[in-house]
Amino acid sequence: MNTLAALLPKGTVITDPDILAGYRQDRALDPEAGTPLALVRPTTTEQVSETVRWANENRVPVVPRGAGTGLSGGATAQDGALLLSTERMREISVDPVTRTAIAQPGLLNAEVKRAVAEHGLWYPPDPSSFEICSIGGNAATNAGGLCCVKYGVTTDYVLGMQVVLADGTAVRLGGPRLKDSAGLSLTKLFVGSEGTLGIITELTLRLLPAQPPQSTVVATFSTLTAATEAILGVTGRLRPSMLEFMDSVAINAVEDELRMGLDRSAAALLVARSDAPGEHAAEEAAVIVAACEKAGAVEVFSTEDAEEGEAFTAARRFAIPAVERRGTLLLEDVGVPLPRLGELVAGIAEIAARRDVLVSVIAHAGDGNTHPLIVHDPHDPDETARAHLAFGEIMELAIALGGTITGEHGVGRLKKAWLPDQLGPDVMDLTRRIKDALDPHGILNPGAVL
Amino acid sequence: MNTLAALLPKGTVITDPDILAGYRQDRALDPEAGTPLALVRPTTTEQVSETVRWANENRVPVVPRGAGTGLSGGATAQDGALLLSTERMREISVDPVTRTAIAQPGLLNAEVKRAVAEHGLWYPPDPSSFEICSIGGNAATNAGGLCCVKYGVTTDYVLGMQVVLADGTAVRLGGPRLKDSAGLSLTKLFVGSEGTLGIITELTLRLLPAQPPQSTVVATFSTLTAATEAILGVTGRLRPSMLEFMDSVAINAVEDELRMGLDRSAAALLVARSDAPGEHAAEEAAVIVAACEKAGAVEVFSTEDAEEGEAFTAARRFAIPAVERRGTLLLEDVGVPLPRLGELVAGIAEIAARRDVLVSVIAHAGDGNTHPLIVHDPHDPDETARAHLAFGEIMELAIALGGTITGEHGVGRLKKAWLPDQLGPDVMDLTRRIKDALDPHGILNPGAVL
Repeated sequence: MNTLAALLPKGTVITDPDILAGYRQDRALDPEAGTPLALVRPTTTEQVSETVRWANENRVPVVPRGAGTGLSGGATAQDGALLLSTERMREISVDPVTRTAIAQPGLLNAEVKRAVAEHGLWYPPDPSSFEICSIGGNAATNAGGLCCVKYGVTTDYVLGMQVVLADGTAVRLGGPRLKDSAGLSLTKLFVGSEGTLGIITELTLRLLPAQPPQSTVVATFSTLTAATEAILGVTGRLRPSMLEFMDSVAINAVEDELRMGLDRSAAALLVARSDAPGEHAAEEAAVIVAACEKAGAVEVFSTEDAEEGEAFTAARRFAIPAVERRGTLLLEDVGVPLPRLGELVAGIAEIAARRDVLVSVIAHAGDGNTHPLIVHDPHDPDETARAHLAFGEIMELAIALGGTITGEHGVGRLKKAWLPDQLGPDVMDLTRRIKDALDPHGILNPGAVL
Repeated sequence: MNTLAALLPKGTVITDPDILAGYRQDRALDPEAGTPLALVRPTTTEQVSETVRWANENRVPVVPRGAGTGLSGGATAQDGALLLSTERMREISVDPVTRTAIAQPGLLNAEVKRAVAEHGLWYPPDPSSFEICSIGGNAATNAGGLCCVKYGVTTDYVLGMQVVLADGTAVRLGGPRLKDSAGLSLTKLFVGSEGTLGIITELTLRLLPAQPPQSTVVATFSTLTAATEAILGVTGRLRPSMLEFMDSVAINAVEDELRMGLDRSAAALLVARSDAPGEHAAEEAAVIVAACEKAGAVEVFSTEDAEEGEAFTAARRFAIPAVERRGTLLLEDVGVPLPRLGELVAGIAEIAARRDVLVSVIAHAGDGNTHPLIVHDPHDPDETARAHLAFGEIMELAIALGGTITGEHGVGRLKKAWLPDQLGPDVMDLTRRIKDALDPHGILNPGAVL
């Protein structure tokens, strides 16, 4: 450890057990988190290179970490590993002419959004955790969010990067160019690789002009079926800038906290938005209203008021913390092709009933990406066991419906047992061959994904 | 050869030298094209698997081929290789609810556009060759086009694929889901891999709602500098749906053929479009007009008429064949970050003067992707030699300006000598490690890219 500390500026390597304790887990709160050797907090790509080169030579595993908000245990500490936190890498520059930004990974998503907004620009991907999650973590997990139904996910906005490979070599991939067909699409391979192929130390991000004001539609339904029908009705007619779903448990949990007058008797609530320019947002909102009414909505409410619309969006974003007040959550991230959404939601209810656990479903409904929240009491071993059974069964259901075990959170350590079921042996073998070619000693985030 | 023919339906394997002759080259017309062993024209993924498995076992190289319109020699025949043409794989199905299509690789880009338009949908990527290039070739080269300045390139529209690996195994990657963070981003790795990692046999494509009608602005300039200033002025203010550039040589070559009244005395012509909804297209057109005037345009013309706008777009698309009437072309595809566009265009003029060759520059100007066309007489060995020197120098210039040797055509065999200069030894090594891991016997498109 001293040999590494000697390579880096004073204070970069931390071994104080009290400080290390705060970095052992991410938001997955894996109880099996190990005891790390040290925490390294570099400020430059060169320091990341030095660290990884030292780790590779000494066969010490490296667990990279952004803001520690991951929900799949991708940043769970391993015994004897270095924790490499990018939290002190926080620079950004914005070029309004190419509409690109060069950002270091430790910046929060919200900080990137604010920095580019000063130039009248917009970085779209918006995980619900955007105020607390890092842009580096977003790239490592190919994070999504609420606007993805229209604007795509993180990979759609990463044009280039600097990344430190397993032997400590730093390479530049891509750059501030919308088009580049020179060589393999390596930039895109590293996005979503969850720290298993390299450590991203700089991102070149594609930006859009500022988002126009949005119209907002809120609709409630007395059955889940009516709500999923409305979702298909909306997406079949237009491309909303947001299309979110909350079930009865989530509606009530949010209402308990925010007291905003949500209909507690509703089986489901949709929040949909349009950001079409000018009066076209209201036109699209009218189409959304009609689709909800056609599907038998109990109540449909539409507003052009930005603040009011933002309040409903914030309510939806608040659903996870609100439901968390009911107990500890096992947080799913399953996605299916949109026409199978109704089957997924019905199947989840069936699993919850069979396993006798509370499951609240919230969803980025417009792209078929759901977050079933499995509520349980960790001090009740029987309920906890049933919650874990349901956790696996929901992933198996998503796979059976042609879906994915993770739409935007990543596989991490929590979901890796199910990855082979989704990908199959041939794709797992392909994955393993790439991993071995790029990280022959397996030092990069071992135990994650594979 | 007979053992392979026996594995496949009658007529799939062709050895007739007269037929083979028509498949030895792509549009790069590489004079060093080899003599292939046979042409294989499968109709199913299984037949592609059988072919590649046989080739791998017998260590016979496979050169995959779409419509043969590649401009970088990615499909140039190699001595003793199998040519695998996907031209008979032509099925497509469209799902309007998920806004996705599943397409076989042999369909032309225009055929995909037409099939999805029947459902009111739009597949954006639009290479100038869209009427004759295949969707499989588009994916293999990560092709671009005119609308990419606003809508991105092929990889932004590929959600999944079926691909045959070097040992003949067919795998499915991704699927009809906007979000999927399960495992490595393998789909994106295969897009743009030019047949060196696998052979794509099916694509899952993301679609958009039909494009709104476009407003069109045409502007002429008396200097190249004024034109490149106007380009930055436009992109700094809004995101056009098209922003194309033609220099004086291209203007005159097009005018010679089409007689549409273009200003022959202009140094440069821009064609810009906006597809903002409703009256916002005209509003954006007014912003574009103002930016052109501010940069000192000689004449600026704006139209809401779709047919008139399409005529100018077609004129720009016709520039390559029109300039080709002046001589044989060496076709560049260099791109730079947009603020360096002026330096690139000026540098190309300097190279043309120094090497005493005619170079006409046309460009997808809004994303910094240019196509310098180097005109020469192949029967004049001295001029041909000078043209080839200029060809290399233009790529070196683009690299020096922080750009790429290929924005949308791919590296193929024509540009591979310059790839290491752009990527550097570390990224070349990374590329080689992935290639070796996925194709250990090097049977897939040997000699292309690497």
